Amino acid sequence: MNLTQGLKRSLQQTPDKVAVRYQGRQSTFSEFGDRVARLAGALKALGMRDGDLVAMLSLNSSRYLEYYMAVPWAGGVLNPCNIRWSVAEIVYSLDDSKSTILIVDDAFTSMADDIRRLAKTVSVVIYAGYRETPSGMVSYEDILKAAEPVPDACLQGSNVAGIFYTGGTTGFPKGVMLTHQNLWSSAISILAEGLFPQDSVCLHAAPMFHLADLSTILAQFIRGGTHVVVPGFTPEAVVQSISQDRVTDTLLVPIMIQRLTDHLAANPGVDSSSLCRILYGASPIPEAVLDRAMETLPGIQFLQAYGMTELSPLATINPPSSYTEEGRRQGKWRSAGRAGLCTEIRIVDADGKEVSRGTVGEVVVRGPNVMHGYLNNPEQTAAAIKDGWMHTGDGGYMDDEGYIFIVDRIKDMIISGGENVYSAEVENAITQHEAVAMCAAIGIPSVQWGESVHAIVVLKPGTEVTADALISHCRKLIAGYKCPRSVEFRADLPVSAAGKILKSELRKPFWEGRQKQVN
Amino acid sequence: MNLTQGLKRSLQQTPDKVAVRYQGRQSTFSEFGDRVARLAGALKALGMRDGDLVAMLSLNSSRYLEYYMAVPWAGGVLNPCNIRWSVAEIVYSLDDSKSTILIVDDAFTSMADDIRRLAKTVSVVIYAGYRETPSGMVSYEDILKAAEPVPDACLQGSNVAGIFYTGGTTGFPKGVMLTHQNLWSSAISILAEGLFPQDSVCLHAAPMFHLADLSTILAQFIRGGTHVVVPGFTPEAVVQSISQDRVTDTLLVPIMIQRLTDHLAANPGVDSSSLCRILYGASPIPEAVLDRAMETLPGIQFLQAYGMTELSPLATINPPSSYTEEGRRQGKWRSAGRAGLCTEIRIVDADGKEVSRGTVGEVVVRGPNVMHGYLNNPEQTAAAIKDGWMHTGDGGYMDDEGYIFIVDRIKDMIISGGENVYSAEVENAITQHEAVAMCAAIGIPSVQWGESVHAIVVLKPGTEVTADALISHCRKLIAGYKCPRSVEFRADLPVSAAGKILKSELRKPFWEGRQKQVN
Repeated sequence: MNLTQGLKRSLQQTPDKVAVRYQGRQSTFSEFGDRVARLAGALKALGMRDGDLVAMLSLNSSRYLEYYMAVPWAGGVLNPCNIRWSVAEIVYSLDDSKSTILIVDDAFTSMADDIRRLAKTVSVVIYAGYRETPSGMVSYEDILKAAEPVPDACLQGSNVAGIFYTGGTTGFPKGVMLTHQNLWSSAISILAEGLFPQDSVCLHAAPMFHLADLSTILAQFIRGGTHVVVPGFTPEAVVQSISQDRVTDTLLVPIMIQRLTDHLAANPGVDSSSLCRILYGASPIPEAVLDRAMETLPGIQFLQAYGMTELSPLATINPPSSYTEEGRRQGKWRSAGRAGLCTEIRIVDADGKEVSRGTVGEVVVRGPNVMHGYLNNPEQTAAAIKDGWMHTGDGGYMDDEGYIFIVDRIKDMIISGGENVYSAEVENAITQHEAVAMCAAIGIPSVQWGESVHAIVVLKPGTEVTADALISHCRKLIAGYKCPRSVEFRADLPVSAAGKILKSELRKPFWEGRQKQVN
Repeated sequence: MNLTQGLKRSLQQTPDKVAVRYQGRQSTFSEFGDRVARLAGALKALGMRDGDLVAMLSLNSSRYLEYYMAVPWAGGVLNPCNIRWSVAEIVYSLDDSKSTILIVDDAFTSMADDIRRLAKTVSVVIYAGYRETPSGMVSYEDILKAAEPVPDACLQGSNVAGIFYTGGTTGFPKGVMLTHQNLWSSAISILAEGLFPQDSVCLHAAPMFHLADLSTILAQFIRGGTHVVVPGFTPEAVVQSISQDRVTDTLLVPIMIQRLTDHLAANPGVDSSSLCRILYGASPIPEAVLDRAMETLPGIQFLQAYGMTELSPLATINPPSSYTEEGRRQGKWRSAGRAGLCTEIRIVDADGKEVSRGTVGEVVVRGPNVMHGYLNNPEQTAAAIKDGWMHTGDGGYMDDEGYIFIVDRIKDMIISGGENVYSAEVENAITQHEAVAMCAAIGIPSVQWGESVHAIVVLKPGTEVTADALISHCRKLIAGYKCPRSVEFRADLPVSAAGKILKSELRKPFWEGRQKQVN
């Protein structure tokens, strides 16, 4: 029960099968396994000891797959860096995790100098690019050639496999410690759901540093199937890969599905007939996008996964049946799905008591996939995991068949006059006004209501609308108690690196010196 | 990651789905779950404390499923008794495990009095039959009715889930301690192999006390599918159940497959169209039986599982591709299969070093399914598990594609003049002689050869053959060094309760005071 077990099975059973296709090159499991064992040897030769952290900052590549296997093979711990982060954020995560080796590709060579200067524990930077090796770095291919292959460290299920940094929208990023057992449980559950069956070919187009794609990497290594890698998502690269490499399974986020279907609609001659399943996650899919996708990619099974880094990452799966005519009619396609095969899900109130079906509360999850904890942060770990239940921070409800529907982040919910108001619902109403570009609904202190709904709105250039007109607009769409009591117009809203509106910053000035109630 | 997690998922997602069909009755997951929670409450009311052992001695029934769920639900440990064992063997296992409660059905009520008198720690016997409750026992249905349902104990993956007694052919039975993680890993791997898919209906005809069928029980609980139970295997009961209950998946042993196909051939009108997959195990399938089965049950996928109690139980799976025309031609159908999705397999020599492909050695297995250990037996545990590898005691070889072929028990292999002779191969040759009813080939001490091959033969009534004639017969079939050097005729052979020839007893007089070499 560790990350390398699946690779070793492929080396034993199918050494001549194609393990990876990337940029027109391919390698068999035998070749890939040899590179993994050499990279592991090279890391050890560079001074890596058991349990040391090795970070990677790179676009998708076949080397990223080698990294994911070689670090545990060498007895180390993974730290795949968020490619959207600033130097400061990455340095924070390297320092916090005490990473000693950093691997970078061409896309991040220029950041690497700054990172190296600032990061306290990084002693070696490995250049995994295709140009000349920058000074001060060692060449990935050179150390691989020079190294002796080493035997697999055979880590235990209870060993930490990686530190995965998350958050950062509120305060410092948190290092999520996931064990081999955590990641294995989530990955084998994905296989047991019917994804990545025998002879599947998995395309990695979503960022490989992220746990969503990593879960498909690990599932496919357990299955022993072929990986296809593109550096990053573009509709052209994905479509070309599907038709050339006969891709059967892939993980995408809704915006990628939208761009893919637009591209397919504009290029009707493309052969996408090999594709069988699309697993999507990260956010709900707009109905129009789903309609379009089902039309452009007929016969393809859609599945949604809902989860988070702290859950390695799988919490729920919305199965293909939710996307059939019947599933659509019942609204199941809007659900995040039901508890996956390794998890239990509950919706609980603020006291941790399960609420009745249909009632909104916090989504909590239990299972072998619940993280070991936050690194260097026992308080936040204790706050997140209570009696074995991971508190997701997501507000949602469960229907009679166990399907959950996410309505809002718990901390973004507004409790006004004893009623729960979901900021997402208010925002949906406001943005339906033609003048609105962007908005955030937050709860602000109110003597009468406890909290009242406050909207902060960015208008489209050249448009105008009054607060009263916006409130009247909302009254036509949602119940009175959900409508904003006050509206404020701004030129822009603070947004995180991941594109999320930083509501905590918006709320802060209103709540200075007070305590916001959380349901 | 515990045995009750799957049941709870079904209670949440599909409370009105049929959980169990047995003897014309059926119960939904909601009804079944209520009975489990009440049985757990009843066990606690009878004095069961956390970690206490509860034994069951019973034919297959829906109550056996309740037992498997209720004991962990109550925080206890399972001890399902081998229904073929004598009172003495069962008492040994109850004493060794300190079982406090014993559940018996009508088939074993008469044994229960003796067992209760002799077993030191059993304080309560629960009568799970359908007649009047015998004096000194408590009624299963009465205590269920009287009990309050209790909440699930939510045991951890590292908790011991059950003690499963095995062996007994050589010395005392050994209590194999399996944790929830052990059993869960094996079961979810079975699902990931494609068995028991969505909407499957699983028939339990093989004995439910045995880990082979238990693994299908647990897999089906994780999936949330329907269980169908017959008290024991008869071709009539199985065929009736398949057609009435629309069974899709079942586990059988080869002799059951043979009897089933004979019955189907004699009753051609039977509707077995729902059946999709047969998982078989325990012994290799004779080619004639396979031919017949594939003819009588066209379109059905065959899979073989190889494993042992100590592996919870899965080691390898021989997939449906081994039974296609191509798989048959390549001889893959004779294989025990390849490493399952949670295991690693190696063939090693006496020093634990991996041997080359095609060379016979001992089959060793590593993974999250390797037992916690033998109860009260650290020496045998240490002898069985070395560096995490479970030593199966089976001799076999691996082909270039990772398929393993079992040739013999390691301890039954004969090393004669430096050559390995597999007793199974010698016995196959001898039994091809028309006069032979039964035989055993063992190694006996030889000054010249170290060991020499000795055959002990039981002839069919009214037949005659000389030792020389039998040896000449063998020379036509196998290499000279494999042929018996000596032949002994006997009226019968000592056989274990499970029907295995007790070769250790046959060898004993020859080796008194000497040490047999083990390869």
